[in-house]
Amino acid sequence: MLWQLKSFQDFIKSEGLIGSKDTVLLAVSGGKDSVAMAHLFKQANFSFAIAHCNFQLRGTESDRDEQFVAQLAKTLEVPFHVTSFNTLAYADEHKISTQMAARDLRYRFFEELVSTFNYQKIAVAQHQNDAIETVILNLTRGTGIAGLHGIKTERQNIIRPLMLFKREDIDAYILANQLDFVEDSSNSSTKYIRNKIRHQIIPVMKEINPSLEDTFQKNIAYFSDLEAFLKASIQEYKQKLFQKHPKGYLISIQKLKEIPALHFILTELLLPYGFNSTTVTDVILGLDKESGKTFFGKDDVLLIDRDFIFLQKIQQEHRTELTLNEDDLMLYFQDFIITQEITETTFSNSQTTAFVDTEKLKYPLALRTWQEGDKFMPLGMKGFKKLSDFFISLKIPLTQKHLIPVLVNADDHIIWIAGYRLDERFKITADTKKITKFELKNIKP
Amino acid sequence: MLWQLKSFQDFIKSEGLIGSKDTVLLAVSGGKDSVAMAHLFKQANFSFAIAHCNFQLRGTESDRDEQFVAQLAKTLEVPFHVTSFNTLAYADEHKISTQMAARDLRYRFFEELVSTFNYQKIAVAQHQNDAIETVILNLTRGTGIAGLHGIKTERQNIIRPLMLFKREDIDAYILANQLDFVEDSSNSSTKYIRNKIRHQIIPVMKEINPSLEDTFQKNIAYFSDLEAFLKASIQEYKQKLFQKHPKGYLISIQKLKEIPALHFILTELLLPYGFNSTTVTDVILGLDKESGKTFFGKDDVLLIDRDFIFLQKIQQEHRTELTLNEDDLMLYFQDFIITQEITETTFSNSQTTAFVDTEKLKYPLALRTWQEGDKFMPLGMKGFKKLSDFFISLKIPLTQKHLIPVLVNADDHIIWIAGYRLDERFKITADTKKITKFELKNIKP
Repeated sequence: MLWQLKSFQDFIKSEGLIGSKDTVLLAVSGGKDSVAMAHLFKQANFSFAIAHCNFQLRGTESDRDEQFVAQLAKTLEVPFHVTSFNTLAYADEHKISTQMAARDLRYRFFEELVSTFNYQKIAVAQHQNDAIETVILNLTRGTGIAGLHGIKTERQNIIRPLMLFKREDIDAYILANQLDFVEDSSNSSTKYIRNKIRHQIIPVMKEINPSLEDTFQKNIAYFSDLEAFLKASIQEYKQKLFQKHPKGYLISIQKLKEIPALHFILTELLLPYGFNSTTVTDVILGLDKESGKTFFGKDDVLLIDRDFIFLQKIQQEHRTELTLNEDDLMLYFQDFIITQEITETTFSNSQTTAFVDTEKLKYPLALRTWQEGDKFMPLGMKGFKKLSDFFISLKIPLTQKHLIPVLVNADDHIIWIAGYRLDERFKITADTKKITKFELKNIKP
Repeated sequence: MLWQLKSFQDFIKSEGLIGSKDTVLLAVSGGKDSVAMAHLFKQANFSFAIAHCNFQLRGTESDRDEQFVAQLAKTLEVPFHVTSFNTLAYADEHKISTQMAARDLRYRFFEELVSTFNYQKIAVAQHQNDAIETVILNLTRGTGIAGLHGIKTERQNIIRPLMLFKREDIDAYILANQLDFVEDSSNSSTKYIRNKIRHQIIPVMKEINPSLEDTFQKNIAYFSDLEAFLKASIQEYKQKLFQKHPKGYLISIQKLKEIPALHFILTELLLPYGFNSTTVTDVILGLDKESGKTFFGKDDVLLIDRDFIFLQKIQQEHRTELTLNEDDLMLYFQDFIITQEITETTFSNSQTTAFVDTEKLKYPLALRTWQEGDKFMPLGMKGFKKLSDFFISLKIPLTQKHLIPVLVNADDHIIWIAGYRLDERFKITADTKKITKFELKNIKP
């Protein structure tokens, strides 16, 4: 018995890849690796079937491969499943790359077979050198820790039972058993890049370290462990830090500051919300500064409040939301955001901030635009003025009028023409005991 | 002004590499990179001096380089420090590689200059491509996260002010300023390997990703952050888990079990004590089993006790230590270790374990070898027997007699001829309330 067969059986056993009653679906292209895999499955007496996809990307060569694999299945006396795809049309229709299209179609076909014929596992013929190539490719293109774990031996119902072998082990097995296989003469861009790594980079690395595959097995095992640790740590931090709030999450600034390597952790925590490393740098710089700074992720907005970071989803409904309760931290209005907080200082150098006497507020407040008949008492004046006249005096065009947010009390009295003028009745006086600060921000960066 | 000069100045400022009153010592070999660095320092008006080492490894070429750098310093009108080493003799004497010898000698010379002439920093001319090469080299040879941070821009008083440049930026600067430089025609093994990476691997990676250097800057920044986080986490875990004990550390098994990705963390924690990943796997498997298992690191022994892992330094003094107190977990004796624990079961299938009635023990116990006149009551016998006769009956040669550990009570009564026979007086009876288990282990693996 060839050592490859013995090792293959031991590997499947020690990794628990195949149950004693499992029937495995083998993905066979007809190339060296998948032919060796099919042969090993036969020799090891596993119950299996063969699936082949004809992607119709290489003309007659695609058909030759299909016939070759059909013949292989016949020789091995196992069920054979085959399908043809119009890969280019699918890619075109879904606006994805040919490579992604082939991948989609392939796994969809496999999953269909799995459920129709009750296969327990799908076996793919990748080996150690494929894993090394993947790591080099990821590094070349840029990666975090997730790009260094190579190719997992098992992921859901997909197994890679050749992961114990180097390419040369498979070549030797093919040779020893005098197995036929087909060669892919195409040079797709993916294959082109893989080939560069395979034929130009890896051989040089092997000159430097002849045990490259063994070394990479260790590298990959270490990085997989590190990745698992990182994921678990991030999960722990998330549970510790992200406090649920009806509209999103509150994150204690105090707790944040206790984290070692804060930038790294906060980036990992906020990346899923579309905040990148650079934004996180700014967020951290903002933690010690005047509160109220906002940052926009993909679908979320992050507000640095006094003691908390507030993370809230930007949804269409939020943008038209109109009432502001006492415990709300902010509110969306068209392209604006209005923040609300209790403060002790009235310092501000911006037109877009209003400090009002908290006791005069009647919640829920509302945010709306100008309405026919609106009047208010502009700060510094004794009498009322029609809002339309106020806009005219500021030379605000009519078209603009409907875009200006007006903050009103529960009784519809105007508190603030946001960004323009506070109402005299709500201003801070010598009797004021508590101050609420409103700030208007434009969401559009 | 060339963009390189402007960027160089900005980089030094933003990274805070050089203080306004600093004088920097430049390590100049005479090659492209260090010549460009010296020229940039001159153009930027920094206060600096040049140091050159003649390692006498390349005959007349070494002398040519020395003269070239001397002339460069003269042209730039800065102080010049030079020294010659008999690198081969030093390497031979200290039994290290030529490369390590050159490195040692070089940094020793620099540090001497730094303290004699009061230089604040030492500048080395490494750039982004050197960092990429280092990462590729480390990965090829096998590495953890520490091998992926590339080359730090600043480490203690050593700065690398060209770290903002790619190799091609420096080539362009040399060309634009028509600077002379020398080339190293040698092919040392280190240089040979570096050249393979530089000329055979990196160009292929750049074909795949033309912005390779920028990508690697991001990779490296991410991995540096991850490394810092990991170090901080390990430090936190160490503080949380390692409980000081007069003879080493106690690690709560309960707390260990709460750690996510335990194998990874425990490996990181125990690696400094010489326990590798495989041993840690065995330690973890041992946590749930019968306690008492021991593992040997480089200078430490690890014992899995009931609730704790006990980590203790193996020192010569321990090996001859003779008394065993009630709260000791173990004791070294020549090539043996004796563990002690309170137990509730007397199950054991080994000759090397003794279960005794705790109440009959008088602490401190002592461990010693046979002494003239020793007698004891062998288990199962009613009377005393001379220990020398007991050894004779077992056909133990005289030379061996002095190597067998004898455990005695504080009053010198023999409890156990370790590995051979318990004393009848200490055995467990129906009246026994508490059981102490002793186990003898051979340290030599």
